[in-house]
Amino acid sequence: MNTPIAQAPTTEIAGTMFIGSEPVTGTGPGIQSRDPRTGEALTPAYHFATPDDVTRACRLAEDAFDAFRSTHPWQRARFLERIAHHLAEATDALVERAHLETGLPVARLQGEVGRTTGQLRLFATTLCEGSWHGARIDPAQPDRTPMPRPDIRRRLVPLGPVAVFGASNFPLAFSVPGGDTASALAAGCPVVVKAHEAHLGTSELAARAILAAAADTGMPEGVFSLLVGDGPGTGAQLVGDPRIQAVGFTGSRTAGLALMRAAAERPLPIPVYAEMSSVNPVVLMPGALAGRAEQLADEFVGSLTLGAGQFCTNPGLVIAVEGGDLDTFTTAAAARVGADSGATMLTPGIARSYREEAGAVTGRPEVEVLARGDLPATASAGQALLAAVTGDDFCAAAELQREMFGAASLLVRCRDLAQVADVVRSLEGQLTATVHTAESDLADARALLPLLERRAGRVLFNGWSTGVEVGHAMVHGGPYPATTDARSTSVGSSAVERFLRPVAYQNIPDSLLPQPLQDDNPYGIPRRVDGTLTLG
Amino acid sequence: MNTPIAQAPTTEIAGTMFIGSEPVTGTGPGIQSRDPRTGEALTPAYHFATPDDVTRACRLAEDAFDAFRSTHPWQRARFLERIAHHLAEATDALVERAHLETGLPVARLQGEVGRTTGQLRLFATTLCEGSWHGARIDPAQPDRTPMPRPDIRRRLVPLGPVAVFGASNFPLAFSVPGGDTASALAAGCPVVVKAHEAHLGTSELAARAILAAAADTGMPEGVFSLLVGDGPGTGAQLVGDPRIQAVGFTGSRTAGLALMRAAAERPLPIPVYAEMSSVNPVVLMPGALAGRAEQLADEFVGSLTLGAGQFCTNPGLVIAVEGGDLDTFTTAAAARVGADSGATMLTPGIARSYREEAGAVTGRPEVEVLARGDLPATASAGQALLAAVTGDDFCAAAELQREMFGAASLLVRCRDLAQVADVVRSLEGQLTATVHTAESDLADARALLPLLERRAGRVLFNGWSTGVEVGHAMVHGGPYPATTDARSTSVGSSAVERFLRPVAYQNIPDSLLPQPLQDDNPYGIPRRVDGTLTLG
Repeated sequence: MNTPIAQAPTTEIAGTMFIGSEPVTGTGPGIQSRDPRTGEALTPAYHFATPDDVTRACRLAEDAFDAFRSTHPWQRARFLERIAHHLAEATDALVERAHLETGLPVARLQGEVGRTTGQLRLFATTLCEGSWHGARIDPAQPDRTPMPRPDIRRRLVPLGPVAVFGASNFPLAFSVPGGDTASALAAGCPVVVKAHEAHLGTSELAARAILAAAADTGMPEGVFSLLVGDGPGTGAQLVGDPRIQAVGFTGSRTAGLALMRAAAERPLPIPVYAEMSSVNPVVLMPGALAGRAEQLADEFVGSLTLGAGQFCTNPGLVIAVEGGDLDTFTTAAAARVGADSGATMLTPGIARSYREEAGAVTGRPEVEVLARGDLPATASAGQALLAAVTGDDFCAAAELQREMFGAASLLVRCRDLAQVADVVRSLEGQLTATVHTAESDLADARALLPLLERRAGRVLFNGWSTGVEVGHAMVHGGPYPATTDARSTSVGSSAVERFLRPVAYQNIPDSLLPQPLQDDNPYGIPRRVDGTLTLG
Repeated sequence: MNTPIAQAPTTEIAGTMFIGSEPVTGTGPGIQSRDPRTGEALTPAYHFATPDDVTRACRLAEDAFDAFRSTHPWQRARFLERIAHHLAEATDALVERAHLETGLPVARLQGEVGRTTGQLRLFATTLCEGSWHGARIDPAQPDRTPMPRPDIRRRLVPLGPVAVFGASNFPLAFSVPGGDTASALAAGCPVVVKAHEAHLGTSELAARAILAAAADTGMPEGVFSLLVGDGPGTGAQLVGDPRIQAVGFTGSRTAGLALMRAAAERPLPIPVYAEMSSVNPVVLMPGALAGRAEQLADEFVGSLTLGAGQFCTNPGLVIAVEGGDLDTFTTAAAARVGADSGATMLTPGIARSYREEAGAVTGRPEVEVLARGDLPATASAGQALLAAVTGDDFCAAAELQREMFGAASLLVRCRDLAQVADVVRSLEGQLTATVHTAESDLADARALLPLLERRAGRVLFNGWSTGVEVGHAMVHGGPYPATTDARSTSVGSSAVERFLRPVAYQNIPDSLLPQPLQDDNPYGIPRRVDGTLTLG
């Protein structure tokens, strides 16, 4: 395709959404993102999509689907690379606006642009490598008795248009140009995003980058749309639209569950990938505590308070055996939490929810508050919190497992390692589970591993879960309620698989077969031939 | 493991279910399978599982899970091979009883034993090959700036205990020892089967084979249980049990949907793989009709009436352009259907449903009945049926797409190829879609292919969908309502994937890592290292 490379997208923030490539100013209720530090409404105002806007975006996505999924994977790779390029070019504007809208530090947001572009480029590489096609060929056996075997070939095809809901805590990496959008586009699925109301300007800028890349690379009209609206209206209509074939979501458990159940009740049910809540247990083993209690306390509070605690992988639960070494850890961690100056959270609503969630835990008679940080004087202030409870009390009250979305953590003091295992057994599904060990802990840690593995999408030793590498082996997912579908990841190259399904082709003439399955393997991809893996 | 090889299982039919390896006579209501030819109740009587029986089976499955999933894949392969061995040894008893209980011909049932044992052996091979582990390794990059990269490895782990519901139409291949059981056991998931009430004795025999194989190969108690009961009671309790982590089901749309929604409403939602209904459209292209109308009619009616039409892949819809060649096809097909002597269906209930479903179609004013076969004088008689409708009428009435589970097919007469495409576009999700072509049809067939691919799990040229190969490339699944989850197949080696989920391991010492991920690759399996596929 010899489409000329267009100009870089404008970094204007005009208060528009995009129905396909067309900028549209909604006519519904007005909405403005707010500076979470001041509570001040940011210009421009946006307006909700009308029901007709939502329908048009879905129809365009459906109309684009066949052309888009038929593009050569290298073309889609080029599309993703051009999105990365335009985002990188717009770094200053994106960071400036996202900083205003989220209060997240500039350095963190610069890093997030890099993470987002890196993720897009990873999917581009993945598209070219080609294992994602899941190509399998069982050649015909015309002489087999009693019945000849037909030629059967199989590949994965995209599900169809995908609805993506942007997350508040990653205005880029889990929002408009984030992992769900990148993996859906990689798979060949057009994407309709509902922007998160907390960062509408950032969303508009990101959409401009995506649409410019679509124009650069000749992608069909409708391959991407951006909608502005609310969850119960716009969001619900989007998930209910018969053209939408899958949903990606990052947010609260209540909203994720509502989406999942709405999708199951559709006349044509569809998969929902909702990442919802996780307390990310951290087990401090006795040897680790004996050797480095203060260092662990330091690292723990660093991870806990990072980004005002607004990471889905925030260490919200610490489990350890009581005793002098744990006291050393606790004293040091409490001192650091107590000295924490607090932070501005993403929105006043999130700050309010955090106060309520933390209050529900600290208000329980069995919970001891060990330390509270300062509460800064901003409109969305968040205060660090460390509390403690015994292993017996923790196992007796499922409410103590509820996520406090912010810089709060609960220390579970156990009698012994057997009770540590009981606490782990009592846990709901998690995104991550961490174990800190010394050499002397390895035998005990080995016994914990299968318990943790059943309850989490990622198990870490001697690290902190708040760092999520974007690579081939990463799993960011986990059993319910961490997500609605533990069979998938929202981060890393295998995320492309969530938007694919298998199709078999029987006795189809070579010239009509999809390229990944043709005899001469024109894409040069890995395939399983009669069960044996061959490298392209 | 040096467990001695036990005696072959008894082929006694004692009227028991099995809670783990323990034979249990239920104490609930009595139930007997019936000879569908005579309606006569077959001895022995069975009794429903009590709620406590169901709970015990689930608890044993949960208790077995960690030991079972920790077995070396070669051990599980040996387990599957021994199941195949014991089934093969019991062929005569299985076929004799299944023939009594289902009325299916002896030769068909002999073939089904072979298919079932072949399927078990395919999963054994798949387990040893090892791609199913989904092993990926992103090695540490300690010198990366600004942050070192940790070592991250990923594999797939089994979901947990699986509930399987036996199907009426394949008393072996989709029932107690069928694909769902085989793929779940291959994945490392203990299985609790609810026997289909229409073939309780066959179910008991198959369970004996599985339990003997478990004993032969030292598998943990609880790896398999067989329950007898009804859907609303026993089945619902099984799907609601918190230990059950996934469900495999083959049956009606109503029952499949109820299961899916019950699973979504659980406090901990779980995936349901329900294969439900499909009319398996067959497009006869003009060139094919011009060249071989009578041969196509012959083959079509053969496929239609095979097994009394009780295949999920039965050709229930034929789509073609009207004209002289189609008339030739229709005349020949109607003559063959009219001459069909009918068949005994699986149960009186299925025969009744079939009459009702066919009656709902033929009772419509726009439907023309072309031929009816004979109605034999048995208790569960099924009569072949061929009816016709215009393309316009078909597209106007979604009810015409409802599956008639039996030897009934609807011919859709289209004005032209454009209307053929419209009819295809109007179709719901299907297990299969077939196109019959001559050389002259290929350009038009190419245009149909993307339409069919979006609506079916398998697309065939110049064959009949009732043959389902059990291989590596087979897909037996498809978009809703063919199944509740198009991302999966219930036949073929990739069925193992439906019972797996990914877990990432970060910075875990080599000695504690699961074997598939250890540095020296002790299983010798294919792995992706830093994104590059390596062959073990």
